[in-house]
Amino acid sequence: MSNINSAARLRQFQKLLAQRKLDGYVVSRPVDQGFLTGYHMEGYLLLVGLKKAWAFVPDMFVDQCREVSSSCNVIGAADQRGSLLAVLKAEGMKKVAFDSEAESYSSGESWKKRGLIAEIPFAPILRETKDDGEAAVLAKSCKIAITAYKKLLPEIKPGMTENQIRARLEYLMSILGAQGPSFNIIVGSGSNSAKPHHITSERKLRNNEALLIDFGCKYGNYCSDITRTIFVGKPTEEFRKVYGIVDRAQKAGVKAVCAGVGCFDVDKVCRDIITEAGYGDKFTHTTGHGLGLEIHEFPRLSTKSDVILKEGMAVTVEPGIYLYGKFGVRIEDSVLVTKTGCKILTR
Amino acid sequence: MSNINSAARLRQFQKLLAQRKLDGYVVSRPVDQGFLTGYHMEGYLLLVGLKKAWAFVPDMFVDQCREVSSSCNVIGAADQRGSLLAVLKAEGMKKVAFDSEAESYSSGESWKKRGLIAEIPFAPILRETKDDGEAAVLAKSCKIAITAYKKLLPEIKPGMTENQIRARLEYLMSILGAQGPSFNIIVGSGSNSAKPHHITSERKLRNNEALLIDFGCKYGNYCSDITRTIFVGKPTEEFRKVYGIVDRAQKAGVKAVCAGVGCFDVDKVCRDIITEAGYGDKFTHTTGHGLGLEIHEFPRLSTKSDVILKEGMAVTVEPGIYLYGKFGVRIEDSVLVTKTGCKILTR
Repeated sequence: MSNINSAARLRQFQKLLAQRKLDGYVVSRPVDQGFLTGYHMEGYLLLVGLKKAWAFVPDMFVDQCREVSSSCNVIGAADQRGSLLAVLKAEGMKKVAFDSEAESYSSGESWKKRGLIAEIPFAPILRETKDDGEAAVLAKSCKIAITAYKKLLPEIKPGMTENQIRARLEYLMSILGAQGPSFNIIVGSGSNSAKPHHITSERKLRNNEALLIDFGCKYGNYCSDITRTIFVGKPTEEFRKVYGIVDRAQKAGVKAVCAGVGCFDVDKVCRDIITEAGYGDKFTHTTGHGLGLEIHEFPRLSTKSDVILKEGMAVTVEPGIYLYGKFGVRIEDSVLVTKTGCKILTR
Repeated sequence: MSNINSAARLRQFQKLLAQRKLDGYVVSRPVDQGFLTGYHMEGYLLLVGLKKAWAFVPDMFVDQCREVSSSCNVIGAADQRGSLLAVLKAEGMKKVAFDSEAESYSSGESWKKRGLIAEIPFAPILRETKDDGEAAVLAKSCKIAITAYKKLLPEIKPGMTENQIRARLEYLMSILGAQGPSFNIIVGSGSNSAKPHHITSERKLRNNEALLIDFGCKYGNYCSDITRTIFVGKPTEEFRKVYGIVDRAQKAGVKAVCAGVGCFDVDKVCRDIITEAGYGDKFTHTTGHGLGLEIHEFPRLSTKSDVILKEGMAVTVEPGIYLYGKFGVRIEDSVLVTKTGCKILTR
């Protein structure tokens, strides 16, 4: 996306540098680099100094990078590290950090030998809440996914394989403008719906069984995430009951989301409803997660989290009940946290 | 794929452990874990000892992992590291390594504090050449991709966007059994074909221009990789000329591939033809790369490589000429190295 304000993001990053009395930071995670420069590509290095920024890219990417990113100096380099170290010297940058969570152990060791300092990643701090531009792109990503799902629904017929359903959904998202799926889409039919992270298979959908679809797309590099569970044919009594409980828990969870509320509390709202209904041990995962440029971001909506939701965070709310060998039900929406509650992006 | 011989692979890995006088190794790259156990999933830890192996997985994955992998002990653990360290103690394993290229710097530091040793990754050594089972799955992956491309060709019409062409190709691969694309498929129309790593866009294909498609799929977790360049409409003289040179270089490169030949030599064969034709500076990348469970694997077919090709290696041969602002041509096949030459998998 060329509509991001890369210069403004770099300035925010530079403020963090100054606060921590650093002269520079080597940003090495592609998603953080893309966030800061607008140039989303594997295999380059980004150096952010207090006033300037440099992208060290393979020669063949120089033109492409310059087209996208006007806020940093683009340097074509066969030896990106060597080129970066030369800039540090030329610019007199002394206290320079590397990302201790993104760099591998051996790579970090080699930066340390050159005098760089291990630091936590800074960009995820800026990515925690979404600005209006990001929220709009994320909303579009969610809109594409749910629109494709609605187009898919009337096409679903017993006899289709899980993979065929997945392929069709990906295609419908793509022709609506998606770059691709935001993760390996889960299509779980029958007892496969009871596996929270089922790997979509060649199993054929049968009549009178559950179908769980956990899906999303990438649009403008932002990831959407939705789960819907349906029953193909005439729902059993047990399915109706379990679906009703998950639906109630999910709606209550979404209603609980609001700036100032704890992630723990949203999880508790969902979990209490499911536990009181007698299925507490069948809700085997956390209630949700942040999302944005990555499908899983900060924060976690979990029993253990002490994070307080902020305006502009984007999170999923996705309780589920899994009856191994029988069926599972999960319902998931992506929502944007607001001052007074949240905006559901996936309806 | 449940048809891999996980027990045999673990034994090969254990031989490497014994050679290096190690009691155990913490395998942390998902692709290496999947190779060794058959269980391809993010977010677990695999410990390989001299006689046994353990997978530490989130509770919700225990059943799934046991279904797939009979060759290791599956342990459900909220605290995977803690659980792993407990096994080290219980089993009296003293000299245990972690993967210095897969673990992050901070994660490696924490393993070191617990007495573990930084080591290069071992699994990629075993993954370097493909056994018959792997070669068959890779061949199927390539077959699906090229079959889908042939189905796509008659559908390509001026007015389609690059993204629509990509979406259609992905769909065709998926209904032929692919798990999904093996990388972000490149569809470059007109002058976009001159960018070796163009990001597929909303640009509409016009009549009388070049169209470059770099694509592949995942099947049974193995990645195929193909590039084809066509001209939509009546090819210009210049396109014909450049296409002819690349085609000649690519065919000569494929012909040069053979067990015992240097990667450098294959690169040189392609590069010499392009250079002698006067386009040496327009061939801005290496000639090819290994592929398998990952789209880019060892070895590189580059000017700098001193690696000798071995029987069972799978590599791409993909020379190109890029005339910035005008058009580019790249032709790429995936081939399996044999004793007497190679088997082209993508025709």
